[in-house]
Amino acid sequence: VAFNITQLIKNKRLGRAHSQAEIKFLIDGFTASRVADYQMAAWAMAVCFNGLSSDETAWLTAAMRDSGRTLNFGRLKNQGRPRIDKHSTGGVGDKTSLIIGPILAACEIHTPMIAGRGLGHTGGTLDKLESIPGFRVFLSEEEFTQNVEKHFFSIMGQTESICPADRKFYALRDVTGTVDSLPLICGSIMSKKLAEDLSGLVLDVKFGSGAFMKTVDEAQELATLLKSTGESNGLRVHALLTNMDQPLGRFAGNAPEVIECIDILRGGTVIAQDTRDLSIELSAHAILLADRAPDLSAARDMAERALASGAAWRAFQKLLSYQGNGQELNLDSLRAQFEHVVLAPASGHIVAMNTEQIGYALVELGVGRKKASDSVDLFAGVEFFAKTGSSIEKGQPLFRLMGSSQPAFEDVSRLLCQSVQISNQAFGQKPLPLIAKVLT
Amino acid sequence: VAFNITQLIKNKRLGRAHSQAEIKFLIDGFTASRVADYQMAAWAMAVCFNGLSSDETAWLTAAMRDSGRTLNFGRLKNQGRPRIDKHSTGGVGDKTSLIIGPILAACEIHTPMIAGRGLGHTGGTLDKLESIPGFRVFLSEEEFTQNVEKHFFSIMGQTESICPADRKFYALRDVTGTVDSLPLICGSIMSKKLAEDLSGLVLDVKFGSGAFMKTVDEAQELATLLKSTGESNGLRVHALLTNMDQPLGRFAGNAPEVIECIDILRGGTVIAQDTRDLSIELSAHAILLADRAPDLSAARDMAERALASGAAWRAFQKLLSYQGNGQELNLDSLRAQFEHVVLAPASGHIVAMNTEQIGYALVELGVGRKKASDSVDLFAGVEFFAKTGSSIEKGQPLFRLMGSSQPAFEDVSRLLCQSVQISNQAFGQKPLPLIAKVLT
Repeated sequence: VAFNITQLIKNKRLGRAHSQAEIKFLIDGFTASRVADYQMAAWAMAVCFNGLSSDETAWLTAAMRDSGRTLNFGRLKNQGRPRIDKHSTGGVGDKTSLIIGPILAACEIHTPMIAGRGLGHTGGTLDKLESIPGFRVFLSEEEFTQNVEKHFFSIMGQTESICPADRKFYALRDVTGTVDSLPLICGSIMSKKLAEDLSGLVLDVKFGSGAFMKTVDEAQELATLLKSTGESNGLRVHALLTNMDQPLGRFAGNAPEVIECIDILRGGTVIAQDTRDLSIELSAHAILLADRAPDLSAARDMAERALASGAAWRAFQKLLSYQGNGQELNLDSLRAQFEHVVLAPASGHIVAMNTEQIGYALVELGVGRKKASDSVDLFAGVEFFAKTGSSIEKGQPLFRLMGSSQPAFEDVSRLLCQSVQISNQAFGQKPLPLIAKVLT
Repeated sequence: VAFNITQLIKNKRLGRAHSQAEIKFLIDGFTASRVADYQMAAWAMAVCFNGLSSDETAWLTAAMRDSGRTLNFGRLKNQGRPRIDKHSTGGVGDKTSLIIGPILAACEIHTPMIAGRGLGHTGGTLDKLESIPGFRVFLSEEEFTQNVEKHFFSIMGQTESICPADRKFYALRDVTGTVDSLPLICGSIMSKKLAEDLSGLVLDVKFGSGAFMKTVDEAQELATLLKSTGESNGLRVHALLTNMDQPLGRFAGNAPEVIECIDILRGGTVIAQDTRDLSIELSAHAILLADRAPDLSAARDMAERALASGAAWRAFQKLLSYQGNGQELNLDSLRAQFEHVVLAPASGHIVAMNTEQIGYALVELGVGRKKASDSVDLFAGVEFFAKTGSSIEKGQPLFRLMGSSQPAFEDVSRLLCQSVQISNQAFGQKPLPLIAKVLT
């Protein structure tokens, strides 16, 4: 069936619903360049105003998934073996993938993770992995599938053949002011997850000053749509709404976050409990979705044991052997050449951290990108000595800046100090918990 | 000053106002292809939802005018001589330009008319003129200017160098569902009129079943915006809101409408009074704007005299000499080879005519275009023997179809009959007058 594209755009402009066939026609046409970029841009803007129903969103997502190749875990499926991934909507210092993957591998749960790069104020898992000398993030689909089948866990960047519609559409939305649209965000996230041939997905939907969704309500709206879209397409989904009102963990930055993850996996003294807690909780939900535990408490215990026993650490080392350069990882190779400690400008309680601003300070430092073609300083990062809820004395260490060069340190120090609110009084309002809500 | 285009789009999406510099940057960038089509399309869709203020609309219009060359009547201006045009928003059987131009020329009012082609259900003046053997509608700006200076009246198609931004933007809007937007419609109409270097403009803003604006209120909204946009840019504007609930006059079709105009100009028995009445009224407002009469009544008398004295007819004949092939116009050369009379299917009062449907029936007959590249049958058309407000007996002639071939006659007859509502009772509601409102 052929539809008139201009009429489809007009219909969405008038708030009318599309049929599944219309949405498929639109996405297929756009992928094949039969639908012009300018028509897709006009349609996207109409969607920004009039939205998509949950049905339309599910159809859009499926059409985007089907715009390219999908992974095929037919062998695992035939054996009744679950395939679980975790996806985060992005934050500052958010590094849980590098802990959850090994935990799940230790629990013998197949975990195919297709990860992305940092853009804007949030970090990306691929950049973190590339700070490990020799680590390969670009695998063939065949190698990736084999890794997941054989070693349970593999992680790679998106290939050209997976969800080409999403890649093309995202690039268009980025330059046409149409990124901020729940159904389009949902389509972008879930099409790639559906292409992984999963049986279950744990979503870490961030809210707060460092997240795209500033409030719990907004995050819940997105989480609900992501979940219904997954479920409409046959995927079990749990969603956790988690706190990004401050950076997650001890470090933000590519190599620094890898160091933090290795500390946690090795079971050493954990300096930032939140990274560990959140990783355990997300892992527990993955274990539940894999039907490996009768309830959340048992699932949590299983994740804890994977960490405490060293099994997760061994899984991580194994990952380095089949995706790395075959050499023992020398942690010193992850450390930056230059550093600079920023002292607290005043005494008092830390009552808030503008985490988006911290994210943009990290970009200035070279951790992230302003545009997709920018290169990053893999060694750059910030250590947080004190975070929201703690007290500090003037002159005590507040941040440590790290990097391959020093010129940006002064500007970044100023940005970071501005992002922290130090008050004589503790909170008026109690801060929101690390995990505000769980949708199962 | 350079602006970030994506941010401009986002601002309009959020309903924020643009500055004049931002709008100029957008239009100049689009004309020079620095702003991508997809960005302009997204912006246009945001405008469809959030609108533009009257200031923004005036700036948009001026920027579009300035995207190319404009006419220059400096010599006339220096002599304090007014330049007046009339513009109609389009309808079925709307042919007043061919009467008003000669009337104004007879009154020695300089009248530069840049006209367009028919598209969709409405006709276009250029197509009508091209039905006259040898008539040239494509003149150089120099010849056009000289004609207007010397002979008072000239009429031509838009040149490549006038308002290139409008041509490019209209083509984009046409395929992105963004045609229906008052400020964008206003920018398109008024940029071309501002490029004519006029001192005054009479607007014929149509309402009713055959117009783009279905109600008087909608037409008034557009007329008000057109007027304020002209006035913001130094142009005096009168706007008449006129009735398109039925076709205007005796004929619709290219050559047939030329025949009707010649009948009126020659002062013969006028079969359709509405074409003549509207032409007089629009001419009277042009005469007022040219300061050639103290009030509307005197202006109307002057227009009447131009017709009654034969001066307008002589001006039309003169037009044929300087834009035609130098030969006497033989009216027989305008008549179609085939014709077919449609009889009234029932007796009663004609209470309504779906004039848009009549327009589309005319397109089927070959009078108009479905898309800009279609060719037209210049001889095709319809004669209306009875219109809204009259009574008819079953079997009496209702329409006469004309054309260079007959195959479409049957389908078109059916469409035309369906478009006429014949009732036992006269109107429940009194029909709206030919001229519902005048904005001066």
